Amino acid sequence: MNKSIDSLIKNNLSGKVLEDFNRIYYGKKHHSVLVLDSTNELDFEIAGYSLPAEKEQLRQPRIVRLGLIQHSIVLTTDSPIIDQRQAIFDKVRNIINAAALEGVQILCLQETWSMPFFLCTKERTKWGEFAESAEYGPSTLFLSELAAKYKMVIISPILEVDDEGVWWNTAVIINEKGEYIGKHRKNHLPSVGSFSEMSYYCPGNTGHMVFDTKYAKLAVNICYGRHHALNWLMFGLNGAEIVFNPSATISEFGETFWGIEARNAAIANNYFTCSINRVGKEEFTVGSENNITRSYYGSSYITAPDGCRTPSLSKTRDGLLITEIDLNMCRQLKDQWGFSMTSRLDMYAENLISYITNHCTNNQ
Amino acid sequence: MNKSIDSLIKNNLSGKVLEDFNRIYYGKKHHSVLVLDSTNELDFEIAGYSLPAEKEQLRQPRIVRLGLIQHSIVLTTDSPIIDQRQAIFDKVRNIINAAALEGVQILCLQETWSMPFFLCTKERTKWGEFAESAEYGPSTLFLSELAAKYKMVIISPILEVDDEGVWWNTAVIINEKGEYIGKHRKNHLPSVGSFSEMSYYCPGNTGHMVFDTKYAKLAVNICYGRHHALNWLMFGLNGAEIVFNPSATISEFGETFWGIEARNAAIANNYFTCSINRVGKEEFTVGSENNITRSYYGSSYITAPDGCRTPSLSKTRDGLLITEIDLNMCRQLKDQWGFSMTSRLDMYAENLISYITNHCTNNQ
Repeated sequence: MNKSIDSLIKNNLSGKVLEDFNRIYYGKKHHSVLVLDSTNELDFEIAGYSLPAEKEQLRQPRIVRLGLIQHSIVLTTDSPIIDQRQAIFDKVRNIINAAALEGVQILCLQETWSMPFFLCTKERTKWGEFAESAEYGPSTLFLSELAAKYKMVIISPILEVDDEGVWWNTAVIINEKGEYIGKHRKNHLPSVGSFSEMSYYCPGNTGHMVFDTKYAKLAVNICYGRHHALNWLMFGLNGAEIVFNPSATISEFGETFWGIEARNAAIANNYFTCSINRVGKEEFTVGSENNITRSYYGSSYITAPDGCRTPSLSKTRDGLLITEIDLNMCRQLKDQWGFSMTSRLDMYAENLISYITNHCTNNQ
Repeated sequence: MNKSIDSLIKNNLSGKVLEDFNRIYYGKKHHSVLVLDSTNELDFEIAGYSLPAEKEQLRQPRIVRLGLIQHSIVLTTDSPIIDQRQAIFDKVRNIINAAALEGVQILCLQETWSMPFFLCTKERTKWGEFAESAEYGPSTLFLSELAAKYKMVIISPILEVDDEGVWWNTAVIINEKGEYIGKHRKNHLPSVGSFSEMSYYCPGNTGHMVFDTKYAKLAVNICYGRHHALNWLMFGLNGAEIVFNPSATISEFGETFWGIEARNAAIANNYFTCSINRVGKEEFTVGSENNITRSYYGSSYITAPDGCRTPSLSKTRDGLLITEIDLNMCRQLKDQWGFSMTSRLDMYAENLISYITNHCTNNQ
């Protein structure tokens, strides 16, 4: 259960058979592996790949190093909140230090990275102190310092509480000077089986903003938003070159297609997608007697616009996935496939309006 | 090069490792294999699977047997057109006879199944006699007889010429009485690399019709249309339970994501998708000297709304993929995932209109 497809394949196929598998499954016979400076003595997995583009005549390559972090919580969920958060900060600082050593320029953390994912408990009050300001909360302050120190753009998905006390599921964008430059609020909220986030916060009201950072134009599609093709599409229309999908998802909720959806979005929209999922088991005591346990399967990976993807990080270990990309690939694939030219968006805008008119009025 | 992922895996993994691979890759540890009556002496591959749904209290299962046919051309492309077509008819009749024996109720053929895919030649005049009427052309007449004989709904993708002499890339729908009940014209035309269909016909003008047949509500998304998320979405909004994707595609054009896009669409839209690609090598003499060769990689497969999929047919052989599905799974997954409830279509309709207004007027 704890083996990923990647490790199953690597451990059981070899030679020509492995090459054939890799060519179809990942999009290339051999992974281009980065040489990393970090030692093997780290207490987390570190892996590095390269997804290069074709050389062009008029443009220089636009090489960027991305870093994705997946991590488990550290203390039990009944520990003091400030201790739980600090322990996560300490762990993540350690991984970010390694990312800096490897030259990572844009780094993204998992959904609500600075807390256990208590949203499965249906409880609210006792966990409320994990909610924080996007602009000046502890996670933003903590990461701003590291962002400035390492000249790194950092995407920090948190549980936000705004000045009116309203909660949001939010990704904060911090630039390479350590400045808060904006936020994206999760556009689509899950209500899947017995799990629902709808009692905690509303669907996002920040649209599909693309952040024009020093290193790339980037956007964030938080967790369940990956199921909605139009969410991915709008980020693309707005000019995103990279879309991050920070998540917190368990194997019962579609591990089978964890490798499908973000990869499909990269192909359809001619941009890079970065899939991040937390790892580890989280146990909660709900009310006086009930226990809820949820195990996250990690498997973070990156897909290029040509459909090629990296192997996944582990299903169980903390990890840092570093990938060197060339942003030129976005336009190259746009030119190759012609999806924008053939998209007929005017027809679809009309179709959606007719559909809404026919299904959502009192005339029905 | 001629091995599919499916055969690589089946021939090289076993036991627990194979089960683990299958669980993540296909969505289940073991494929549910249908017992077939057909002998092994057929000159094409035949494979049968089952993709069952949960039992319900109020609804009976709605079991349907689907059949997909992938096939190569028979005669060289310089043979008389009537002979080329007749040879394909003879081959396909043989496969449909086997499908009937196995109880197939809805059958779909590959894109422009009754001709070589000459659209790669950029030539028009000399191939024009392959174009035929959707309503009363030879392919429709040929299949209508078999449809009536076997009480089979048949989807017949052809090169259509209408009464004004205009060409279309069209799928004809024939009901179980052998009656023509409608057609769908390809909504998005490829212009990929040096390959383009745009000089042959226009993008379809038949919208996203769903055909309410005796066995299921079905729709057709022809070939390149699988790259467009909104195309898949509209078929779903219009009530499709199964969407067929008859194709003619070569490995340079995205074999890496042949398994991704239609599967993603099945998950996102809570319906079954059926991916069909032709097989074999097709050689054309263009002008007086040039030769064009294109090899199709088959690999037809079916995905259920829960993301589980069948293995693929071969990359090289003619084949019949039979799959027994339960249409109840569509609503079950709609209920499970809540995508319709969380889709925010009104927001996206507005977004698309703003985008079009900002990018497609002379004010820019």
